Amino acid sequence: MKLVRNTPALRVTLLLAFTLTVGFAFAQFQRNPIISPEIDQDNKVTFRILAPKADEVRLTGNWMPFMQSEPMMKGDTGLWTVTIGPLAPELYGYSFLVDGVNTLDPSNKSIWRDGAFRVESILFVRGAGAELYEPMTGPKGTLHKVWYASPTLDLTRRMYVYTPPGYEDSKESYPVLYLLHGGGGDEDAWTTLGVAPTIMDNLINAGKAKPMIVVMTNGNPDQAAAFTDSPVLPNPSQGGVGMANMKFEQSLVKDVIPYIESHYRVKTGKTNRALTGLSMGGLQTQNTTFMHPELFDYIGVMSMGFADLSRFGIKTDDSQRAEQIAALKTAHPKVYWIAIGKDDFLYESVVTMRKALDEAGFPYTYRESTGGHTWTNWRIYLSEFAPMLFK
Amino acid sequence: MKLVRNTPALRVTLLLAFTLTVGFAFAQFQRNPIISPEIDQDNKVTFRILAPKADEVRLTGNWMPFMQSEPMMKGDTGLWTVTIGPLAPELYGYSFLVDGVNTLDPSNKSIWRDGAFRVESILFVRGAGAELYEPMTGPKGTLHKVWYASPTLDLTRRMYVYTPPGYEDSKESYPVLYLLHGGGGDEDAWTTLGVAPTIMDNLINAGKAKPMIVVMTNGNPDQAAAFTDSPVLPNPSQGGVGMANMKFEQSLVKDVIPYIESHYRVKTGKTNRALTGLSMGGLQTQNTTFMHPELFDYIGVMSMGFADLSRFGIKTDDSQRAEQIAALKTAHPKVYWIAIGKDDFLYESVVTMRKALDEAGFPYTYRESTGGHTWTNWRIYLSEFAPMLFK
Repeated sequence: MKLVRNTPALRVTLLLAFTLTVGFAFAQFQRNPIISPEIDQDNKVTFRILAPKADEVRLTGNWMPFMQSEPMMKGDTGLWTVTIGPLAPELYGYSFLVDGVNTLDPSNKSIWRDGAFRVESILFVRGAGAELYEPMTGPKGTLHKVWYASPTLDLTRRMYVYTPPGYEDSKESYPVLYLLHGGGGDEDAWTTLGVAPTIMDNLINAGKAKPMIVVMTNGNPDQAAAFTDSPVLPNPSQGGVGMANMKFEQSLVKDVIPYIESHYRVKTGKTNRALTGLSMGGLQTQNTTFMHPELFDYIGVMSMGFADLSRFGIKTDDSQRAEQIAALKTAHPKVYWIAIGKDDFLYESVVTMRKALDEAGFPYTYRESTGGHTWTNWRIYLSEFAPMLFK
Repeated sequence: MKLVRNTPALRVTLLLAFTLTVGFAFAQFQRNPIISPEIDQDNKVTFRILAPKADEVRLTGNWMPFMQSEPMMKGDTGLWTVTIGPLAPELYGYSFLVDGVNTLDPSNKSIWRDGAFRVESILFVRGAGAELYEPMTGPKGTLHKVWYASPTLDLTRRMYVYTPPGYEDSKESYPVLYLLHGGGGDEDAWTTLGVAPTIMDNLINAGKAKPMIVVMTNGNPDQAAAFTDSPVLPNPSQGGVGMANMKFEQSLVKDVIPYIESHYRVKTGKTNRALTGLSMGGLQTQNTTFMHPELFDYIGVMSMGFADLSRFGIKTDDSQRAEQIAALKTAHPKVYWIAIGKDDFLYESVVTMRKALDEAGFPYTYRESTGGHTWTNWRIYLSEFAPMLFK
């Protein structure tokens, strides 16, 4: 059999022929494909959307300040366009506001979901500072989408387990990083918005991080799996309920760690375990390591300090905090790392936390970044924390 | 620590507080959440979208005839509504046309991507006929997102490997089903639109299918992985180029099968291998088994016959077909299953195929369904084909 090499126009014909329900976006694509987003040499980005009847179309993206948007200009054919930037190399989410209605980019099929919040079109501006987020050629880890029994929560639950490049072809055992998401998120977050498997592949292949297993759980203790995947399984959570009831933390220790250590080739013991998480996951990291100072030698708290959550209706019990800090100090973890952005709305909570730790003479490493409570920061934090581990 | 149980309103506050860039859809959600889609007791479905400035909003979904849509009604606040159905229990994709612009449902964060074609909001109407698509409590398989070396295609490529419930906790070896997607799709298709892992869990747990490994490859030989995931890796394909150049078929035999048989606990040999695929994957199934009659005892060709692809610029070489059929007949596969919908645009190609097989005295099982070239049919075909295997 021989393929007569096809042209772009022919390729579209092929696409049309081989799917029955092609969708309306194709009517426009067929004749004159709209390219969006288009990134030029200087990292300026042009966005385009066909909306002939609209009075106003705006672009919103997470490189802009919160809730801001940019106007787009209407051309003769009803094609709205805007060119922005240059943008720093980074992974961004964006969407259009067509007469106020939030609309994904019809010309871009790369999308991600941010927990229960939203879906967005993805813009990837390649270049220095974002190399870790690109899948490269060469050896790669495997991502396992696993269901496990959680007697503690009385649920069959889902998590992701990343095994590093070479795991399948060796007999070696590996240390484990437990990596927690934030409030409103779920187990999908670190594999999509966080691009953790790609970051780990690239760090490990470059010799910057030790080969390790990375476990990404669902931190909402009332949820079996991401709500998008489980119409039947329990999934009442819209996020946040894992914030203070300690149930997730108990299940992490009683269910998750034993599952991982009995189903993967894992080096056990404190020196071979790391725990980190962002926001709600940072709180869960604090809680777990305060309750169990004997479990982890590497601890990372991202974008969360000692926060007063009472304004969210959450009462935290701080009465044992001094004893907890003392016990963790005695356990002497090798790394206790605190990371926060200057603009994070939880910045003050980290000031409070550092003050308490300083007063107790508890050693930690402090990393203050630019930016706020964002996946941009959490990807950077992972890429900085992972290289500190198991050395 | 103690959680003061939160109200829906508080939960929204929490969501808002714990993410900086929440997106504009939340403005409306915060005060008066819009519920869409809403499925009533009779499986009638109400869709809602807030678009105060729009002149016309329509609903389109894949339960409607191709390219059709339904008008929605505008209410006082600019909330557009339509109630349709009752719909048969099924997984559907849908979107809104807001003054002609294709828009996902802002109130529904469950979405899927159909290859290079489109993204859609997902509607799941539960009930008889769609039970296999619901994740249930109980044991479940693991989905492995694997990268493997393909010397044949000179690429590091991605595939999914489903291992059945109990795989991790047993020492058993399992037979393998290779499951191929269609033109324009990629390795994600069977795990999302096809819900293959859930279908297999449910069939295996009910004793209707033997525990088996299911391998879901990327059938575009010029593509390392789904284009959404690989900005750097080769991914020129927009689909269809795997249709006639035999390269994917060669890599399946030379790269994929050896990888699976050396990395998983697999029963080898013809009696323990099955191959099926839809559309382009059906053609690849024909090609692979004609070239290698010795490899598979279970063969399923979905929604593809002996098609004349010359109108798509693809020249197929049929000169050896009679010898190929004779060789496969001699090899005597246990199951050769052909499935097609009455309304499939490739229906006639299956008539042609059956005629050729009949003339050659080649035994096969023919399954004619209602409907066309759709994932509704391919989910049903998988749920019928898998129970025939390895018995």
